[in-house]
Amino acid sequence: MINLPGKKSLKVLTKLKKLNGDYFDPYPFVHSNKGNGCYFQDLDNNTFLDFSSQIASNPLGYNNPELKKLIKKYSNIHPIKYAGQDFAIEEHLKLLEELTSITPKNLNAAFLINSGAEAVENSIKICMRKNENAKFGLCFKGSFHGRTLGALSLTQSKQLYKKNYFTVPVKVLDYSEKAVEELEKLLKNYSSGEIAFMIIEPIQGEGGYNIASKKMIQDLRKITKENNIPFISDEVQSGMGRTGKWWAIQNYNIIPDVMSAAKALQVAATISNRKMFPEPGAISSTWGGGHKLDLALGCKIIQIIKKQKLLNNINNQGKYLRKRLQELNLDKISNVRGLGLMNAFTLPNEKLRNDLVIECLKNGLVLLGCGHESIRLIPPYIIKEREIDGAVNIIEKSYNKIVKSGFKHTGQICNYMNCVKSNT
Amino acid sequence: MINLPGKKSLKVLTKLKKLNGDYFDPYPFVHSNKGNGCYFQDLDNNTFLDFSSQIASNPLGYNNPELKKLIKKYSNIHPIKYAGQDFAIEEHLKLLEELTSITPKNLNAAFLINSGAEAVENSIKICMRKNENAKFGLCFKGSFHGRTLGALSLTQSKQLYKKNYFTVPVKVLDYSEKAVEELEKLLKNYSSGEIAFMIIEPIQGEGGYNIASKKMIQDLRKITKENNIPFISDEVQSGMGRTGKWWAIQNYNIIPDVMSAAKALQVAATISNRKMFPEPGAISSTWGGGHKLDLALGCKIIQIIKKQKLLNNINNQGKYLRKRLQELNLDKISNVRGLGLMNAFTLPNEKLRNDLVIECLKNGLVLLGCGHESIRLIPPYIIKEREIDGAVNIIEKSYNKIVKSGFKHTGQICNYMNCVKSNT
Repeated sequence: MINLPGKKSLKVLTKLKKLNGDYFDPYPFVHSNKGNGCYFQDLDNNTFLDFSSQIASNPLGYNNPELKKLIKKYSNIHPIKYAGQDFAIEEHLKLLEELTSITPKNLNAAFLINSGAEAVENSIKICMRKNENAKFGLCFKGSFHGRTLGALSLTQSKQLYKKNYFTVPVKVLDYSEKAVEELEKLLKNYSSGEIAFMIIEPIQGEGGYNIASKKMIQDLRKITKENNIPFISDEVQSGMGRTGKWWAIQNYNIIPDVMSAAKALQVAATISNRKMFPEPGAISSTWGGGHKLDLALGCKIIQIIKKQKLLNNINNQGKYLRKRLQELNLDKISNVRGLGLMNAFTLPNEKLRNDLVIECLKNGLVLLGCGHESIRLIPPYIIKEREIDGAVNIIEKSYNKIVKSGFKHTGQICNYMNCVKSNT
Repeated sequence: MINLPGKKSLKVLTKLKKLNGDYFDPYPFVHSNKGNGCYFQDLDNNTFLDFSSQIASNPLGYNNPELKKLIKKYSNIHPIKYAGQDFAIEEHLKLLEELTSITPKNLNAAFLINSGAEAVENSIKICMRKNENAKFGLCFKGSFHGRTLGALSLTQSKQLYKKNYFTVPVKVLDYSEKAVEELEKLLKNYSSGEIAFMIIEPIQGEGGYNIASKKMIQDLRKITKENNIPFISDEVQSGMGRTGKWWAIQNYNIIPDVMSAAKALQVAATISNRKMFPEPGAISSTWGGGHKLDLALGCKIIQIIKKQKLLNNINNQGKYLRKRLQELNLDKISNVRGLGLMNAFTLPNEKLRNDLVIECLKNGLVLLGCGHESIRLIPPYIIKEREIDGAVNIIEKSYNKIVKSGFKHTGQICNYMNCVKSNT
């Protein structure tokens, strides 16, 4: 059982809490530089098995030897952040070459930017540029598309993220096959040009790892195509191989007009057909396409996924993980679901969910919540069966503990991911 | 005279153009890793003197020895991007400590994020969170605050950036002492709570390096304070020492409620008083506060500016640069202006401005436009008199050439920063 936070972590977290204005509750440990594969150590030398992958941003785990070699290669220069939309660097081109080698054929160009939110903002911008009549965009209940005001307007997962902030006009469809009817109804009241775009996560991330049905996505694609409504697949979390295909939308055998990507890619990208991009000046970003190291790392990550055939591992280990979770056959764990290594299960309520996350953490397993009552499992793509066995054993053991006795908060800081709230 | 683009650069730029969907016209060269101080080499071994500093993002120039040493220190690990709002790293704390050591005393906390635009988005978000009545924000003619839809709604510099994109509600004040009256008038029609915030660049960047008068800023501060309207100083380009003080607003002897920073800081930040920050969950970002190297570099940059007393150099060299430009006494160059190393001058029209930028480039000097007819000069903070002399000589020589004969576009790519347009 790990005592959290450890002394060294506590010292850093206490100061951090003061200087950051209390606007976040980090996990009760501080990362050290030490780690290997799916495991990392904190400042107090506690070892954790990581099933959160820095919220899907760390696809190859800690201290990957090939990525370390790459960093070494760059260590004799000062890799400044270039103003990449004005001043080109080779890494920009190389990443675009790798990226477009794994996108559907018609999505043959990309705009690189700084975050998933900005990838979404630019996805909707390129859809709107040539449309003078747009009145609103379409998004879905439970969605999460980022936190800048444009992306946040599309985000419907939690009211906490939006309260009192200005929004741009959107209409919200049900995240189910009902959406098809709802869209048809809208098209009776609005011309298709008035609908600026539709944006959807084929698998909702932060909102609860909800998986859209094939019928829903395919019907929506059909109608949007017939009505020239640009269809954006938000792949910030689900893209880059996470679901066992390069892009989540490929599980549905349709091709979107635009995709947004980030996280595992190390930079963010708005991906589309060359012809969808507007005139110079209409989209830009000082740092977009200019982070030499992140670009080089993103490029190498795609190459490694290809070379090591990691999509196979993602599919196989994903199946194994879901099988093992189902076999646990625990009363209060339901709806084990997922595609590839994007998996989740549901607890009866938020308190029990949070308690389980914390208890697992104390047993050395890092998990993340999603939605209100679910836990997501997103280990690095290199995960092995025995590591899944280890994680499932910790989940079982922690479950038995918290179902019996509940979680008691004893830490001094970080509120153990809002456990104060969850214990009341 | 440099032949632009060189062969190697052309090869990269041609491919890049294809894969990026033509949405930007980069400068007609590609950076190599080679460079030293204020000079860098492109792939074709052409040497340039850099008076653009990657749009103010490269305050210490190329291959700074201390920053190189820092990179070396990190070269034995794989410095992944942490999900820094959930998983803390020490570099996050260290940057916050350095950053709050140079901010006005009451601005004692900061939220770290991915770009200047996101710093602005979060600046307005923290102003709005506790205000249920907000109807609109206030910004200024000629302003540039970024390109995400929230920040873009506040941006007034060029219509090109905004056409057909959704916006959030703003009212636009004149960037002059008239703004005071305009605000007073607004306050007769709206309760102060209905005005969500006022955001201003003390020195407008992209919009034309316009410098607000002391009276204007001080009067606006007085009224906003009296009416509890949060005052945001957008310091993305002008902050971090660029004007000879740590923050441009300090040239006006007032203290804002919120500042946004980025560029020279290597990461972006929304800076305010601890009490201004909202409850956990109200603002966040996966990569915010989690880029180990950028955080470490930003921290070291502040330390180097302090240790080498670079604010003095910024003030002295800024004065010298303006004096040298004024002494040129060239007919068509007017309104030499600036603070510290944030300087500009004006040409009679856009075509001549662009021609001069390009002719200087061919003579080895990198400049940037701003506004419609101005050129900005933002060399690294380490610039020396003899380098300023070199730049001014190139400007004079190029001016004489283009005023006589104009610029003829002969390149194959990049349109030499829209010179096609500028030649028509």
